[in-house]
Parts: sequence; C-alpha cells; structure tokens
Amino acid sequence: MIRPLLAVAALACAVPLAAQDDGAPIAIGKQGSFAVGGRIVVNDEGATQSCGHGYVEYQIPAYPRDNKLFFWHSSSPFVWQNNWEGDEGFQSLFLRRGYTTFLWDGPGVGRANWGCEEQSYSPSAGRDQQNFTSWRLGPDWLDWFDGIQFPTDNAFAINQAMRARYNEFDTMDAIRIEAEAAAEAFDQVDGAIAVTSSAGGLRALLAATQSDNVRAIIAYENPGYLFPEGEGPDGPDTPFGPLHVSEEEFARLLAIPMQFVWGDNIEGHAIWRSKLEECRQFVDLVNARGGKAEILLLPEVGLTGNTHMPFADLNHRDVARLMDDFLARHGLDSR
Amino acid sequence: MIRPLLAVAALACAVPLAAQDDGAPIAIGKQGSFAVGGRIVVNDEGATQSCGHGYVEYQIPAYPRDNKLFFWHSSSPFVWQNNWEGDEGFQSLFLRRGYTTFLWDGPGVGRANWGCEEQSYSPSAGRDQQNFTSWRLGPDWLDWFDGIQFPTDNAFAINQAMRARYNEFDTMDAIRIEAEAAAEAFDQVDGAIAVTSSAGGLRALLAATQSDNVRAIIAYENPGYLFPEGEGPDGPDTPFGPLHVSEEEFARLLAIPMQFVWGDNIEGHAIWRSKLEECRQFVDLVNARGGKAEILLLPEVGLTGNTHMPFADLNHRDVARLMDDFLARHGLDSR
Repeated sequence: MIRPLLAVAALACAVPLAAQDDGAPIAIGKQGSFAVGGRIVVNDEGATQSCGHGYVEYQIPAYPRDNKLFFWHSSSPFVWQNNWEGDEGFQSLFLRRGYTTFLWDGPGVGRANWGCEEQSYSPSAGRDQQNFTSWRLGPDWLDWFDGIQFPTDNAFAINQAMRARYNEFDTMDAIRIEAEAAAEAFDQVDGAIAVTSSAGGLRALLAATQSDNVRAIIAYENPGYLFPEGEGPDGPDTPFGPLHVSEEEFARLLAIPMQFVWGDNIEGHAIWRSKLEECRQFVDLVNARGGKAEILLLPEVGLTGNTHMPFADLNHRDVARLMDDFLARHGLDSR
Repeated sequence: MIRPLLAVAALACAVPLAAQDDGAPIAIGKQGSFAVGGRIVVNDEGATQSCGHGYVEYQIPAYPRDNKLFFWHSSSPFVWQNNWEGDEGFQSLFLRRGYTTFLWDGPGVGRANWGCEEQSYSPSAGRDQQNFTSWRLGPDWLDWFDGIQFPTDNAFAINQAMRARYNEFDTMDAIRIEAEAAAEAFDQVDGAIAVTSSAGGLRALLAATQSDNVRAIIAYENPGYLFPEGEGPDGPDTPFGPLHVSEEEFARLLAIPMQFVWGDNIEGHAIWRSKLEECRQFVDLVNARGGKAEILLLPEVGLTGNTHMPFADLNHRDVARLMDDFLARHGLDSR
C-alpha cells in the first residue's frame, strides 16, 4: 500500500486547541491532493492513458484526531465547503475540531473526469426546478417551506445553490467504479469515516463491502441501500437503490457504526417518504443481524426546517453537534 | 457587485508571522468556494438551468497581504496543490507568505462542468506519452532529460503526474467563455494576480482585456498571446494563440506587470521553441508601447532541469522565491 502523502510525521502542536474555536484561524499541518485507483488503457502500439482514478483533496489539521472524515458529495463539494449563506461548511467546522478531512471527486466526476469511459453531457432546462423540489427547499419552485433553513431572501445564496452542481453519473457501472476507487482510497489513508450526501451514501455502503477501512458511515438523506440477495424491497436493482450484494459482502456492514440522518418536510414528498421507508428496512435488517445502524430524524430532536442537505443549512452548526455526539458515542473522536 | 464571501472583517493576527514558516501550521482565516458568472438557460415552459459558471476555491490566511493570487491551471489544480513528489504546492507556499489564494475551474472544467453547452469526452490511449513529451519530462516516453526536476525513480509520483489531468476544452468558444467568467471573478474579489500554467495564460490575458481587476500576470510557459489586429505572427487565430484583439483591448495589458517564465530543455522542442519566440514578439510589442512585460528564463538565473510546470518541480521553492522577487519589485507584496 502506498501512503507517502499521509506519511507526515505528527506535527508538534504549535497552536493551542483553543485557537480552533470559531473565529480563530484554522491551523493546517499539511494540505494537498492525490489521485487514487484507476486503470491504464493501452492501444495496439502500446500507447497509454492513465484514467478512471478518483481525486482526493486533503487537509490535515495541526493536531489531528485519530479518525479522518471522507466527505462524499452528490452535487458538488460546494455543499461541504460552505453553508447556504457562505458561512464555513463542515469541511472547516470539522478541521477546527481536529479531524483530517477529505473531499472526494469519484472517477468521472468533477476534478476526476479523466475517465476510461466515454462521457457526454447536455444542459437541460428544468434542472433548477428539479433541484429545488428534490432538495426539499419547498413544494414548488421558489415556494419555500415555512421555517426552511435557507436564506430565502438572499438572491446571491439562491444563485449559488442552483450552481452547486456538476455532472454525476447515476448508472450501475459508474457507481461500481466510484465505490471501487473509494475503497482503495480508504485503504490508502489507513481508514476514514464516510460522511455522505444523498446518492453518495449508496456508493459508500458499497465501498464498505470492499474495504475494512471504512470506519463508520454518517449518511445525510441517502436514497439507496444494500440488501443481501432475497432481502429488502421488491423490484429490480437501480442506481438509487436497492442494490443486492452477497451475504458475505453484507456482513461487512455489520461491523461498523452507521447513522442515517434525515431533514424535515419528508412526509409530503412521495419519493423521499419511500426512501426513508427503505432506510428503515435496511437499518432493521442490519440491527437484526447484530449491526450498529441508527436513524436520526432531525425534527425529532428539535431541529426543524432542514433540507435534503442539513450540513449546508443555516443551522448546520447544530447538525454538526449531533455528528459530534455520534462520533463520541462510538469512540471515534479520540486523539 | 456582490462580494459577501470575501466581505470578512480583517481577522486579528492571532498567529505570529513566524508561524507561517515551512513546517509550522498554515493559519487559515476563512476558506470555502463559490460559483461566478454563467447564464440561465430557459425553455418554452419557463423552466431553467443555471449553468456555465466557473468555480473558485478560496483560502484566506489569518493575516492576509493586500493582493490575492488566482491560480489558473491547464491540467488539474493538483499541480498547484502539490509538487511532483507530494511536497506542498504553490497554493500552500503562498498562503504561508500571506497571500489569499484562489484555485480556478473555468466554466465547463472540473468542478464547473455544469455547462450551458453540450460536452463529450472520449479516452484516448497516447495521452500519457503526449503529456510526458509536451510537459518536457524527456524527449520520449520515460526517457528523462538529464537533471530533470522530477523524481524519476518514484513510481507513485509518475503515476500521480499522469493523472494530474482533467478535461479542458481548447476551442475559441471555450476560451472566450472561460475568460469572461474569470473577468467577473477578478471583479468580484476586488482584484487579484493571475498565476497561470500553460494554456491558462492565454485565457488570463484575454480576461485582463475585459477587467481592470487583473493586477498582474505571472504566466508559466504560456503558449498563446494576444496581438492587436495586424500585428504579431502570421497565420490564423487558434486556441493556442495567436489571438487578435482590438487596440483598445490590447491597451489594457500595458497597464499591468507581466512576467512570462520558462523552464529548461526548450531548444530541442520545436513547438515550445516557437512558442517562446511568440512570447518574445508579444513582450517586445507590449514594452514598445510602454507596458511592463518581461521574460524569465529559469536556466539563465541558475535553475536548470525545470519542466513545463516549474511551480510543481522538485526545486519549486526556488521558483517561488523568484515569484517573490517579481511581486516585491512591482510593489505587489504589501500588507
């Protein structure tokens, strides 16, 4: 296993921990990026293209905790880097807490779009409206939910949110390629906790069936779940779940703590309501087999108005504190 | 002009400047990202897609200098984030010096590939070999130049270098769209210095004809130049230069300091030799009209073995010190 990029000697703590509070500077020990996984395609003349890798952007705080957080978006890392009004996002909030952070562009995605497969993209009017409703900002375009955790009168923020997207490829092939490269990334960094948004969740579950170095999964509004053959909801496998795996692969999920977090206003949205139902089936199945899965419904613990991306909402610091609780409960916050 | 993301009150200097030396933590006041520019496409039903923006990743050090650096890649920001052996790249080196840094993915590129135009991509064996020779790592695939500033016996580094690529679109349309969005970015952040790699240089020159907020240009191995109509090399306009602009647009380039930096082993490479010649024509023309352009040939100041990307080479700290000199000479390093 090649790990030169993270084989940095532990840095002396030159900055007191108190300096990591909000408002003080964030102390970064080292930062950079690396490619992971991928293939090399070769033609008849022996000429090559190195392609199909993922891209990992990393930041190691000055005095890091033992565990690292692997942020897996499904729209753009914008949503991990900022909240909706431009306040610092989970990336910075958890660096302040001492966690090494990774932002992940899977193979074919964003800064890793040097793929081994052909790709095409066409713009399509209607995507703004689709984002608005599927991210549950409101029931219809610019008709905001009451109490939504979004700065609804901030035209700059609305524009930024609609542009917090780039190409994702929700095909079975793409999901498998992304999960495989991510599994290599988790191995290469000696383990990390997957923190996922939306469709990143299914990919992280799949990666966890291929690597023992996924230490935990915290999935915000994951639509798709894995089930052992013969279990789970009826219907065929789809890129948004369900996906069926072998009993042996499924067993790997029983060893790690998993939390599935959901925002507000789900009852009125048929798709998300059914996805939450699928989540319950999965969690029940995992726990019936001795696993450690749980569901966190934010309205039930007093946080209301959260969208499909609670970590980017106006109350994202409250959401972060709930993540702290989960990490502490499972002993994942050690230094 | 909307500038909420950078309208952060100047942070108290909680970390002494000495802490910004190599090895000490980097003190970040704020970091995040934002979209800039772009359009909104609308269909007959009024449905929309917000698209065609660029993506800016920013880091503001705790005690920033007045000027900000806008890093414009032509392969992947990997080369600004790391040197070839995984040491920290110009992004971090110049944060340590107190400069706010931006990493730019122009419209259609990397994390900004939510374009308003159709795009397609096909893998193509031979790209590794093309990178190797056009980046002047050696005359032929894995036949390294003597004294090259690359860790030639490091298989991990070679693999990373070949994967430091993602889709660029070197068409006239793409260049104009990227330059236009970048000009908006320079305006939005109240001015910055463009630091460019390869084909990013032509785009930055074009952006500087459209914005008074490009404070300077430092271009590493830029293949393409702007000329007033009727001037410059013979032949048609191409995406790798030359490009012709109006006298009025060209005049904007006369107001800003510009440095064009070149590595080693150019004489034996016909294309780069002719591009350096075009650079000389441009610099002479700018200076004949009262501008402030200069060429820096690294071998002439004692740095040998540099590739097409001197800022990512093994001696990148020496290259950075030459950038310090340029910034200081033009009074661009004030706090």
